Amino acid sequence: MRLFTLLAVGLCLAGLPALAQPKSAGAPDPTLIEDLVVANRVLADLGVLDGFGHVSVRHDKDANRYLMSRSMAPALVKAGDVLEYDLESTAVDAKGQALFLERFIHGEIYKARPEVRAIVHSHSPSVIPFGVSRTRLQPIYHMSSFLGLDVPVFEIRDIAGPASDLLVRNAQIGAALAKVLGDKTVVLMRGHGSVTVGTSIPQVVFRAYYAEMNARLQSEAIKLGAVTYLSAEEAAASAKTNDALVMRPWELWKRKATKPE
Amino acid sequence: MRLFTLLAVGLCLAGLPALAQPKSAGAPDPTLIEDLVVANRVLADLGVLDGFGHVSVRHDKDANRYLMSRSMAPALVKAGDVLEYDLESTAVDAKGQALFLERFIHGEIYKARPEVRAIVHSHSPSVIPFGVSRTRLQPIYHMSSFLGLDVPVFEIRDIAGPASDLLVRNAQIGAALAKVLGDKTVVLMRGHGSVTVGTSIPQVVFRAYYAEMNARLQSEAIKLGAVTYLSAEEAAASAKTNDALVMRPWELWKRKATKPE
Amino acid sequence: MRLFTLLAVGLCLAGLPALAQPKSAGAPDPTLIEDLVVANRVLADLGVLDGFGHVSVRHDKDANRYLMSRSMAPALVKAGDVLEYDLESTAVDAKGQALFLERFIHGEIYKARPEVRAIVHSHSPSVIPFGVSRTRLQPIYHMSSFLGLDVPVFEIRDIAGPASDLLVRNAQIGAALAKVLGDKTVVLMRGHGSVTVGTSIPQVVFRAYYAEMNARLQSEAIKLGAVTYLSAEEAAASAKTNDALVMRPWELWKRKATKPE
Amino acid sequence: MRLFTLLAVGLCLAGLPALAQPKSAGAPDPTLIEDLVVANRVLADLGVLDGFGHVSVRHDKDANRYLMSRSMAPALVKAGDVLEYDLESTAVDAKGQALFLERFIHGEIYKARPEVRAIVHSHSPSVIPFGVSRTRLQPIYHMSSFLGLDVPVFEIRDIAGPASDLLVRNAQIGAALAKVLGDKTVVLMRGHGSVTVGTSIPQVVFRAYYAEMNARLQSEAIKLGAVTYLSAEEAAASAKTNDALVMRPWELWKRKATKPE
Repeated sequence: MRLFTLLAVGLCLAGLPALAQPKSAGAPDPTLIEDLVVANRVLADLGVLDGFGHVSVRHDKDANRYLMSRSMAPALVKAGDVLEYDLESTAVDAKGQALFLERFIHGEIYKARPEVRAIVHSHSPSVIPFGVSRTRLQPIYHMSSFLGLDVPVFEIRDIAGPASDLLVRNAQIGAALAKVLGDKTVVLMRGHGSVTVGTSIPQVVFRAYYAEMNARLQSEAIKLGAVTYLSAEEAAASAKTNDALVMRPWELWKRKATKPE
Repeated sequence: MRLFTLLAVGLCLAGLPALAQPKSAGAPDPTLIEDLVVANRVLADLGVLDGFGHVSVRHDKDANRYLMSRSMAPALVKAGDVLEYDLESTAVDAKGQALFLERFIHGEIYKARPEVRAIVHSHSPSVIPFGVSRTRLQPIYHMSSFLGLDVPVFEIRDIAGPASDLLVRNAQIGAALAKVLGDKTVVLMRGHGSVTVGTSIPQVVFRAYYAEMNARLQSEAIKLGAVTYLSAEEAAASAKTNDALVMRPWELWKRKATKPE
Repeated sequence: MRLFTLLAVGLCLAGLPALAQPKSAGAPDPTLIEDLVVANRVLADLGVLDGFGHVSVRHDKDANRYLMSRSMAPALVKAGDVLEYDLESTAVDAKGQALFLERFIHGEIYKARPEVRAIVHSHSPSVIPFGVSRTRLQPIYHMSSFLGLDVPVFEIRDIAGPASDLLVRNAQIGAALAKVLGDKTVVLMRGHGSVTVGTSIPQVVFRAYYAEMNARLQSEAIKLGAVTYLSAEEAAASAKTNDALVMRPWELWKRKATKPE
Repeated sequence: MRLFTLLAVGLCLAGLPALAQPKSAGAPDPTLIEDLVVANRVLADLGVLDGFGHVSVRHDKDANRYLMSRSMAPALVKAGDVLEYDLESTAVDAKGQALFLERFIHGEIYKARPEVRAIVHSHSPSVIPFGVSRTRLQPIYHMSSFLGLDVPVFEIRDIAGPASDLLVRNAQIGAALAKVLGDKTVVLMRGHGSVTVGTSIPQVVFRAYYAEMNARLQSEAIKLGAVTYLSAEEAAASAKTNDALVMRPWELWKRKATKPE
C-alpha cells in the first residue's frame, strides 16, 4: 500500500493527465452539499473548529471522490466553496483556489476505510492535551462510547522525521495516519489535533463534539482520583444505541446554525 | 416493590389493554405545560441539558400521570410536543412519535416518591466526573445545600449487568435507580449523568443548575486543599431558606428564555 | 459596638417608630440611581452575580442612608425597584415589596466604614473555593492589587453557631462580618460568597470583577507550582494607580449593558 | 543603548521642542488604520483584551512612528481615536486626550526590533499564571509554534525595584522589557501580563490569540503528566508554515468583529 501510494504521488508529480486532472463523478445530492455546509457552521459554533480544521464527505455517486471546501475558515464556507477531490486528494476543478495542505488526511482515510463516509480534522482544544501526554483518551460516559477502550495517538516523527511542520502535507503521511487510526473512530495527532470518522455527517459531527466533551470531563475526573471508564462491552452496546440517536442533536445544531441572524 | 414492577412490566409486555393504553387524566393546567416548555429552554440555556436529557412534571389532576415531551432535543420543545404518561411510562397517546428510551426514570421515581412533582435527567457536564470517581459530591456553599451531606451514585452494573448500554431502558432499572436515590434530591449515574427531583418546576430547575455549579466549584476547591463542606445542620437550615427563594432566579431565567429573538 | 448593635436591634424589634420608619433623606442624584441600575446589569453580564447577590450605594445626601433594589434578580433591576434604607437596614418605604434577607451586610459595613460608598455581595463562582479551603486569596497580578497581601475569611459559625442557614440575616451577624472585613476591600464568607467594598460604583464593580478573575487565575497558577504574589509595596502602589483608571472598563461595561437589544 | 535611552528621556524631560513635539510622518495608509481598529475589536472578542491592554502598528510611511489609540477600552476604539507616536512614545498630537501610561512598551520595542511592525500588550488570562510560576510557557501544538522553545519572563523588580506599580511607565522600563524579549515573539511580565510582536496586524493577532490558547492547553496537559513539546526544529518549520496562513483566521475574526449588530 505504502509503495503504491508513493508510486501514485510520483505519477502525480510527473504530471500524468489521468491523475492530475481527475474527472468529476457528477453533481452530488444537493442535500449532501447543504449538510456539509451546515456541518462546517455547527462545528465552529460548538468550538470544535476555529479558523482552522476541515470536514469532508464522500461523494454519494462515486466512492472514489469526496467533497470538501477550498482552504478557508470553516464558519465562512458556502455551497459554492465546496470542491470535489479524488482519493489522491487532487481537486477535480480547483477553480484557481488554494486547497487545504492537509487534504491527504481525507483521501487516505477514504481509501483505507471503505465504510467511512465523513471525516473531521480539528484542533478541538480539550483533546490536544491527550495527544501530548501518556494519559490515553478513554470514554468516561455513554455519549463518547464510540471511543471504544481507548484512542490511538499518531506520532508524526515516526513517518516525517524530527523536523516536520507537523502537517499531513502528502499522501505518505496521510497513509501512515490512516494506519494508526486502524478501525477506530478517532485518532489523536501529537502536537497538532485529531481526526474523527463516521458513516454520515450527523454522526461524525456528534463524534467530534463528544470526543471534545469527553476530553474535558475525563481531565476533570482524573483530578478527582481513580476513574471507572466504560468497559469494552458497555462501550460497544452504548455506541450501537447512540448511532440511532444522532439526528436528535443534529436537528438542534442545524436549527441554531442556520437561524437567520 | 421490585416484584410488583416486574409483574407490571410482564403484564405490559403481554399487551393487556388497561396497561398498554392508559386513559388520560384530562387536560392539565395550561401554566403547567407552559412552565414545562420554559424549563426545557432554561435548562438548555444554562448548559444543564444539551441535545439530550429531559424534564418532566407530575400531572396536576392525577398523581398517577406525568407530562414530558416526545423524544427530541429539549431546546426545541413546544407545547404541542408534550405527552401524558402513566407511571408505567406508557404514553396515553404517543401520536406516532418516538418516546424517550429512558422515560422509566420518571415513572419509577414518581411511584417511589409521592411528594416529588418534577424531575430532570441530564448529562450536566461538571457532575459527570463525580459519578465515575470515589470523590462524593458534597455541598460547598449554601446554594447547593439541597444536596445534603452527600449524593448517592447509581451503578447500573448492579442491576443490568456488565454489558448494558447504560440506559435506564425499562422499569426494573428505573426502580433500582429510584431505590438508590432514596429520599435524596439528586442521584448520580456512573458513566452517564444524574437525576434531580423537586416539588415544583422552578425548584427542580434551581437544583439541577446548582448541582452543576457545586460540582464545578467543589472540583476547583479540592485542588486547593482540604475543604470545609456544609454540615448536615447547615445544609438543612439553608435548604429550607432557599426553598422560599426559588422564584427569584426562575423569573430571571424564564425572562431570558422567552425573550423574542 | 456589638453591644450598641444589639441594643439597636432590640429597639427595632420593640417597634419604636423612629427606628421602624426612618425618614427619607430626600431624592438622591438621579445619576446615582442610574449607575446603580447599570451596576446590577454589568455584574450580571460579567458573571459576578447570577439570580442572587446585590449591590448598594450610599446616599449622596445623607451618609446614614443607602440605596439598593428590593429582593429580585439583579439583571432585572430598574430604577423603580431601588429603595432607600437606613443603616439599620430598615427600608424608608418598602412599597410592600420583599427585601433582601441579607441587607444587614450593607448597613453594618456602611456603619463601620465611613469612607465606603458602594458594596457588592456576590456568589462569584471562582471565589467560592477560596472561602472553603485554607489557601488564601492573594493578588497574582496588578489588576487585583486592591486585595492587598491577602483576603480575610468570615466563618459564620463563630457568630451564628453550627446550624445557621449561612445568611447574614440580622445586624449582629452583619456587624461580625464587618469586623472581619476590617479595613480591607474584600471579605470571603465560608460556604457562601464574598463582599467587596469601594468608594464608588465603578470602583466596586471593578474590584468585584477582578477579585473573581484573580481567584480563577490564582487557582490555575497554584497548579503550576510555587507562585510569586505581589508584595505589599507593589500591591499598594498598583492599587493607587488603578484607582485612577476604573472609568476605562466602566465605560465599556456600561456601554454593553445599556445597548438596546 | 540604555545610556542613549536615559539621555533621550533626560532631553525629553528637559522639554526640548524637537523631542516634545514630534512632526507627523503624514497620513498612513487608511487600511492600516482600519485594520488597527478591527484588531482592537477582534482581540476583545477573543478575550485576549478586556477593558485594558493595547495594540499598535508601525507607521507605513515612517519606521520611526507608530499608531495606537488614545487611552481607552480597546473594544470601543474607532478610527478617530488613533494617534501617531514617535519612538519616544510622545504623541504627535494628543488632541488633549489621555495616553496609555504604558505606551513605552511599544516605542522601545519598535526601536529594538526593526522588523517588528505590530505589537499587542494584554492581560490575556491563561497566560498570567505562567508569568508568576517557574513553569515556562512552551508550544504544545503547531498553532503556537511561534513561541519557539520557550518564552522569557520579565521581572520588573530587576529594573524598577521592589515597590513599583508594575507598569511600564517610562522608556527605561520599556527598554529593559525589550531586552528580555530579545529576538522572541512573546515576553511574559511577572504579575502583569504579556507582550506579543509580529510583522503585521493579522500575524500579531494570530500570535496573541494562540499564545492564550497554548497557555490554557499547556496548563491542562501538565495535569495529565509529562508533556511532549514541539522540538526546536518542529517549532521553526511550523512557524514558517503558519506565517503563510494567518489571513485565514483573520478573515473570519474580521467578519465577526465588523458584522452589523
